[in-house]
Amino acid sequence: MDLIARLAEIVGPTHVLTGAEAAGFGREWTCHYTWTPMAVVRPGTTAEVSALLQLAHETGTKVVPVGGNTGLNGGTFAEGALMISLSRLNRVREINPAARVVVAEAGVVLETLHDLAAQHDLAFPLTFGAKGSAMVGGFLSTNAGGSNVVRYGSARALCLGLEVVLADGRIWNGLTGLHKDNTGYDLRDLMIGAEGTLGIITAAVLKLTPAPTAYATALIGLPSLDDALTILNAVQKGSGGAVEAFEYMPDTYMERLAKAKPALACPFPPQPVNVLIETATTVPGADPVAQLEATLFEAMEQGRVTEAVVAHSTAQRRKLWEMRETAAEITFTTPDIVDCDIALPLDLLQSFLDRMTPRLMALDPQAGELVIGHLGDGNLHYTAYPSRSDAALGKAIRAAVNEEAMALNGSFSAEHGVGISKRATMAAHKDPVAVQMMAAIKAALDPKGILNPGKVLP
Amino acid sequence: MDLIARLAEIVGPTHVLTGAEAAGFGREWTCHYTWTPMAVVRPGTTAEVSALLQLAHETGTKVVPVGGNTGLNGGTFAEGALMISLSRLNRVREINPAARVVVAEAGVVLETLHDLAAQHDLAFPLTFGAKGSAMVGGFLSTNAGGSNVVRYGSARALCLGLEVVLADGRIWNGLTGLHKDNTGYDLRDLMIGAEGTLGIITAAVLKLTPAPTAYATALIGLPSLDDALTILNAVQKGSGGAVEAFEYMPDTYMERLAKAKPALACPFPPQPVNVLIETATTVPGADPVAQLEATLFEAMEQGRVTEAVVAHSTAQRRKLWEMRETAAEITFTTPDIVDCDIALPLDLLQSFLDRMTPRLMALDPQAGELVIGHLGDGNLHYTAYPSRSDAALGKAIRAAVNEEAMALNGSFSAEHGVGISKRATMAAHKDPVAVQMMAAIKAALDPKGILNPGKVLP
Ligand SMILES: Cc1cc2nc3c(=O)[nH]c(=O)nc-3n(C[C@H](O)[C@H](O)[C@H](O)COP(=O)(O)OP(=O)(O)OC[C@H]3O[C@@H](n4cnc5c(N)ncnc54)[C@H](O)[C@@H]3O)c2cc1C
Ligand SMILES: Cc1cc2nc3c(=O)[nH]c(=O)nc-3n(C[C@H](O)[C@H](O)[C@H](O)COP(=O)(O)OP(=O)(O)OC[C@H]3O[C@@H](n4cnc5c(N)ncnc54)[C@H](O)[C@@H]3O)c2cc1C
Repeated sequence: MDLIARLAEIVGPTHVLTGAEAAGFGREWTCHYTWTPMAVVRPGTTAEVSALLQLAHETGTKVVPVGGNTGLNGGTFAEGALMISLSRLNRVREINPAARVVVAEAGVVLETLHDLAAQHDLAFPLTFGAKGSAMVGGFLSTNAGGSNVVRYGSARALCLGLEVVLADGRIWNGLTGLHKDNTGYDLRDLMIGAEGTLGIITAAVLKLTPAPTAYATALIGLPSLDDALTILNAVQKGSGGAVEAFEYMPDTYMERLAKAKPALACPFPPQPVNVLIETATTVPGADPVAQLEATLFEAMEQGRVTEAVVAHSTAQRRKLWEMRETAAEITFTTPDIVDCDIALPLDLLQSFLDRMTPRLMALDPQAGELVIGHLGDGNLHYTAYPSRSDAALGKAIRAAVNEEAMALNGSFSAEHGVGISKRATMAAHKDPVAVQMMAAIKAALDPKGILNPGKVLP
Repeated sequence: MDLIARLAEIVGPTHVLTGAEAAGFGREWTCHYTWTPMAVVRPGTTAEVSALLQLAHETGTKVVPVGGNTGLNGGTFAEGALMISLSRLNRVREINPAARVVVAEAGVVLETLHDLAAQHDLAFPLTFGAKGSAMVGGFLSTNAGGSNVVRYGSARALCLGLEVVLADGRIWNGLTGLHKDNTGYDLRDLMIGAEGTLGIITAAVLKLTPAPTAYATALIGLPSLDDALTILNAVQKGSGGAVEAFEYMPDTYMERLAKAKPALACPFPPQPVNVLIETATTVPGADPVAQLEATLFEAMEQGRVTEAVVAHSTAQRRKLWEMRETAAEITFTTPDIVDCDIALPLDLLQSFLDRMTPRLMALDPQAGELVIGHLGDGNLHYTAYPSRSDAALGKAIRAAVNEEAMALNGSFSAEHGVGISKRATMAAHKDPVAVQMMAAIKAALDPKGILNPGKVLP
């Protein structure tokens, strides 16, 4: 019996896609990578995923898991490989509002979790632009971040337990909702962020949090990123750790924004650093706006904050957020951009820019530069606009960004992972012993190397 | 040259202890385990630790790392092995109050971190009874918990980066202070909680938090543990997530406490469930006491809370804490006790007790039972007092506790790890695939099995 027939025996013939049917799975969201999968299968249960991997292991078939396919690093590239789509594994197995956990299968869409939690006056606080498509298995496998990380952490911090099918089909049942469990190695965190190279996540226990009942949102202008860190610490203190977002928009961003969307122009003369701050609370009767204003007032008296606008209505709040959310549109204007997703120690963001801008100018005096970022996490989305379409120049600029970030003990991939697109950077910049350890772990858990081959490890 | 001479070449002769000098290292804090190490070495630098492990690897010498030696599971048992004491690796390499991180070597004592953070108006919030002895490498290797986990998480949640020497002497430099870094597998969390079986931690980047400026502390009485979970959620909501401690003391505990320490008797007629709640804030001018009282008042109107005493002075706060901190003294009264450290899903604590008490009575109708715990984390310290000294009975009771905890998707070791003492339980109760994965990882990173042999893995 050939492989396709054996796959059909496991999942049923309607759930094995080949040829034209499979072609829709053959590209990334950015269209940066395209490929032709051998086939796409859509298992409906964990047992079917297990049977598929047993078969793949036995036959040495390369397997690429796919969720919402919104990843940004070529992680679902699957030339000639069997793609396992988790989209039918989309049951919410349990929701427990008292214990504040939900047990969701890998194919549950992020936004579905948001809606479900809201029905219980709770929140699942992970959120980002692709929430309508990204799935549990995908956001855990990429350890996705987004705009609330400063308060709630990345996907990893919101997961208590996992169910995972290993390369040879064994099922690891780590589906506990415990807050403490010191019984051996932390396999959960090893699987989270492994981008499908160590196992296929089939279900997870996720944490829910109380839904905020009031927000305070402000846009402030400051002289420098060092001042921004002082303000972040002050607002954290003044709000009792309630900062939900702390988003960076420099003057260069504000200028592009005003041109592209005059209605979203900065409400004050753009300062070198502009930050969207949001705090939130669940405390009945609390006034987070007054609290935030008090902190900002003090900072203005000290000259650390030079401009400030506080939202006094939902419409004003929405408008401030739109200024930030237009970033993708403003950024991805030409195909030649060099877009980087770096992390830095919180106190070295200004140092990075002070080093990077002259380096960019040395490489290409006419180049443009645009930075936005999740400042509260030290995460900058740094984009360069070379003055000419020149692959070598683009490569040199990217190398310079990575070098400068690494020189400051930073990271060349804050949220988006490695996939294919950053494998070369892994080889160049990741601690070599760390890479050796990862390779040893990969060989131990997937000795035939069938799981998402060619990803993550250099 | 013999091994001792080669060790002396690396660390200097004064830092190689043998015979009588080494004997002091030959027992656990509880004196439950004793042993005779081959020698104890005290390296002063990471390079020395690396040279020691190269030598151990070359010669197949078994190595046991030791920090403050306050672990409670036989993890430092080292019969005939080379003990590597990290106590001289005790420099604070850097403290950065703006970025809220400290870089500390493995031998820095927990209390030293507390003091250092306090000098900067910050806190390192991990704390437990052994804080005057436990060290960075030890509390990370055991992923220690303590009484502030409900707010700040266990040791794992407070660590951003690690420096680790591997079994063959290679040094992994993962010493970054980044809040986001998606560049491959999460090696940090793999090392944390590995109890010295995968590498020797030599330094860590740890997170600091703003030091609270005001506390609200109360003792409340409730009908059941289910009510306690409702109250926990209500106080979390009412305080904006500021619950620092939520500690359980049932009526049986209160009765023993009143007998042993009349001055610490419960200020109201003990209820089936009594809980010490503490919230804390950094918000200037905030009144956490009024906030807590408002939540408790509502809960009393609903009949969920039947008694409450709120501390209105530091002395009253101290007294409430003393009631809880006397637990060890109250618990460890006879050598025959069966003391268990289990975790349960937050909503199944009452179910556990409803199942366990009859099982204990069936095994030994005259047995006593005492439970306290970190309720906010689902962590119960369950202790049984058999009516007679009988090893088989003790074993049967312990097995029953583990069985009932596991039947409710719980854990047989919430905070204290596995070490030697829970290896058999690992074999009996841990998911077998998880155990296989751990064994594969251990073999990949320590192929000769020289690092803390006979620990953790069954
Ligand atoms: C508009 C937009 C905005 C975004 N914003 C952010 C942001 O703010 N922050 C951020 O961190 N990311 C962001 N992303 C990228 C983000 O990583 C993904 O959106 C999401 O986390 C991936 O989920 P997915 O289900 O689409 O995974 P996919 O793209 O399907 O897969 C991602 C990777 O995980 C693997 N994988 C998928 N499912 C499984 C599984 N069940 N088990 C094992 N491996 C699996 C795949 O093989 C692949 O390597 C954004 C993407 C878009 C398109
Ligand atoms: C009075 C008392 C109260 C306690 N309360 C709590 C509590 O509330 N919560 C809780 O979780 N625990 C508690 N503990 C136990 C707790 O785990 C330890 O106190 C502490 O975390 C261990 O630190 P240590 O430096 O003493 O480690 P050690 O006892 O020296 O070592 C513990 C383990 O880690 C390994 N190890 C030590 N250093 C390193 C290193 N540098 N690299 C790799 N491996 C290493 C050892 O081989 C051993 O397996 C308590 C203990 C006592 C005595």
